[in-house]
Amino acid sequence: MSTLQLAVIPGDGIGPEVTAEALKVLEVAAPSDVKVEPTRYDLGAERYLATGEVLPDSVLAEVRGHDAILLGAVGGKPNDPNLPPGILERGLLLRLRFELDHYVNLRPSRIFPGVVSPLSEAVVGGREIDFVVVREGTEGPYTGNGGALRVGTPAEVATEVSVNTAFGVERVVRDAFARAQRRPRKKLTLVHKTNVLVHAGAVWWRLVQQVASEFPEVTVDYMHIDAAMIFMSTDPARFDVIVTDNLFGDIITDLAAAITGGIGLAASGNVNPDRTAPSMFEPVHGSAPDIAGQGKADPTAAILSASLLLDHLGHAEAAAAVEAAVIADLAERTPGTTRSTAEVGDAVAARLA
Amino acid sequence: MSTLQLAVIPGDGIGPEVTAEALKVLEVAAPSDVKVEPTRYDLGAERYLATGEVLPDSVLAEVRGHDAILLGAVGGKPNDPNLPPGILERGLLLRLRFELDHYVNLRPSRIFPGVVSPLSEAVVGGREIDFVVVREGTEGPYTGNGGALRVGTPAEVATEVSVNTAFGVERVVRDAFARAQRRPRKKLTLVHKTNVLVHAGAVWWRLVQQVASEFPEVTVDYMHIDAAMIFMSTDPARFDVIVTDNLFGDIITDLAAAITGGIGLAASGNVNPDRTAPSMFEPVHGSAPDIAGQGKADPTAAILSASLLLDHLGHAEAAAAVEAAVIADLAERTPGTTRSTAEVGDAVAARLA
Ligand SMILES: CC(C)[C@H](C(=O)O)[C@@H](O)C(=O)O
Ligand SMILES: CC(C)[C@H](C(=O)O)[C@@H](O)C(=O)O
Repeated sequence: MSTLQLAVIPGDGIGPEVTAEALKVLEVAAPSDVKVEPTRYDLGAERYLATGEVLPDSVLAEVRGHDAILLGAVGGKPNDPNLPPGILERGLLLRLRFELDHYVNLRPSRIFPGVVSPLSEAVVGGREIDFVVVREGTEGPYTGNGGALRVGTPAEVATEVSVNTAFGVERVVRDAFARAQRRPRKKLTLVHKTNVLVHAGAVWWRLVQQVASEFPEVTVDYMHIDAAMIFMSTDPARFDVIVTDNLFGDIITDLAAAITGGIGLAASGNVNPDRTAPSMFEPVHGSAPDIAGQGKADPTAAILSASLLLDHLGHAEAAAAVEAAVIADLAERTPGTTRSTAEVGDAVAARLA
Repeated sequence: MSTLQLAVIPGDGIGPEVTAEALKVLEVAAPSDVKVEPTRYDLGAERYLATGEVLPDSVLAEVRGHDAILLGAVGGKPNDPNLPPGILERGLLLRLRFELDHYVNLRPSRIFPGVVSPLSEAVVGGREIDFVVVREGTEGPYTGNGGALRVGTPAEVATEVSVNTAFGVERVVRDAFARAQRRPRKKLTLVHKTNVLVHAGAVWWRLVQQVASEFPEVTVDYMHIDAAMIFMSTDPARFDVIVTDNLFGDIITDLAAAITGGIGLAASGNVNPDRTAPSMFEPVHGSAPDIAGQGKADPTAAILSASLLLDHLGHAEAAAAVEAAVIADLAERTPGTTRSTAEVGDAVAARLA
């Protein structure tokens, strides 16, 4: 019997509700010789508002000792004057991604059978839409570099600095190529804006060319982020593996989620491929305070994130079983009816039991 | 009789083809007491490859003396080793936008009758999709700030600096509010990423709040750029006026173009509202070298850009007539048939004659 030491950060809003279902499924799905041992960490808006604490160093140190992290969602009520934008995002979510070196932010997108896309039949009908975005997770415009002068005055100037290193770009590009190599279509698309962001663009472009020589079977493609918007909404079937920077990845994955049936289904992994720290798995959606506490949230994205977690820890069969259970559950949803958060979790867990 | 001194920059690829049609329509549509006097400026990839010149200062000075600029598209063959990314974009297109202080990059989006959207009927059917993106045009990540160290080595670090000033943000925000005020729904949505880009986000947020007090009738909304992807693809009818930064605007307007029937229809104005220099009008699409010279390009976006040009110069009636002619032309297109670039231009011009 081995144990899976799991740090659980339910977070805010619908976070705790969806995390409970993901955990329920994870416990049923884990291989019989693996005991899931969850430890809950109470972090997020509520704790911050009550104590001023976002992510105490001691908590980070404890979290670091786990095999993996399951996170729900983080974020308070919109425009709460006591919760300036960025406090939780920068101080908790992004701090975890940066401190634990989650340089591969993995976001698979598929249109599962039975799921309705906002794209027309002419665009998605009869086509297989199945791609994955490998979003860089530790650099780009997300570093927090930048600042402001003369804040609040008519002479204010505020900067945001996107930082891109060959070290950081090369490792995520290599990971993306390796994933493309393992997929049937073996295609990699770099998405950037090399014609405007010429410095950052040059380092991305150069390293994609360089690493490509190690993966002769992988076809390489390039697309500006604006053109990617067009293709994502008119021909998403063309994508296989997309590799892109932190901010472009943030943007494109929400569009990818939307066109493949909504943010309620989009899973993600914040992966440290070198395993120097635990990886973290979370739905792409936010804390949705407007529907929190009502059992309305769809836990599917959180459950699929648990599947990515199992896969990352080497439990490929268990991961595939969770995915298969979700696919079966989605295919049998009755249009027009809704189930509670717990009902969905129960239904998926029942298929695995 | 007055004259409209027009600088015409046909550019590369399909640029000259679509510009010729826009000019044809402009000449027919201009009020009878206005004589359009076009002067062509040969700028773009071809000139650069032949002479190394992008935008000579003397040409810029001449262009500056005109009432307005009509631009086709700029950009050479993809991956031309003699044309590094950014040379033309930064040196020509963006230089014009910056030097001529085009701080309002205006991009209207409508689903015209008869036009097919890639979004499903469930999303767009029976709804009025009619919004305008006011994209900031002279700041943000487009300033060219940034650089690179140890280029081409494993120790390379490249930065891109987004510069945001209260001066620059306030003026574009005020313009967007004024446009919202003139529209029936009077709604303004700020799109940004204030939870990550906290410095730039703060100045945008503050100035939207501040300018809002001058426009009490305008409803103000905020959306993160990633959430905007979701709403743009699942509920575009909710948008009226969107105000956003240069890069987010670049991204969101290509998605807006795609969902409203494609980049072949998307017009734009690079507007200097203070009229200290000529404004420039151009289709959102690029130079599309793959279909250049074949008469395949749809000139509708260029023609609609000419309508924006007329409107900007105070010829509101002529502008409306061009738009009406385009709408009539679109409504009568026979699905499955294609017309040449010139046929579309001729058809629109004939309706105006
Ligand atoms: C909440 C926010 C900081 C985060 C991001 O921008 O990465 C989210 O949008 C995501 O995509 O995980
Ligand atoms: C060609 C490029 C520099 C330009 C931009 O990024 O602004 C284009 O994409 C646009 O939207 O007008």
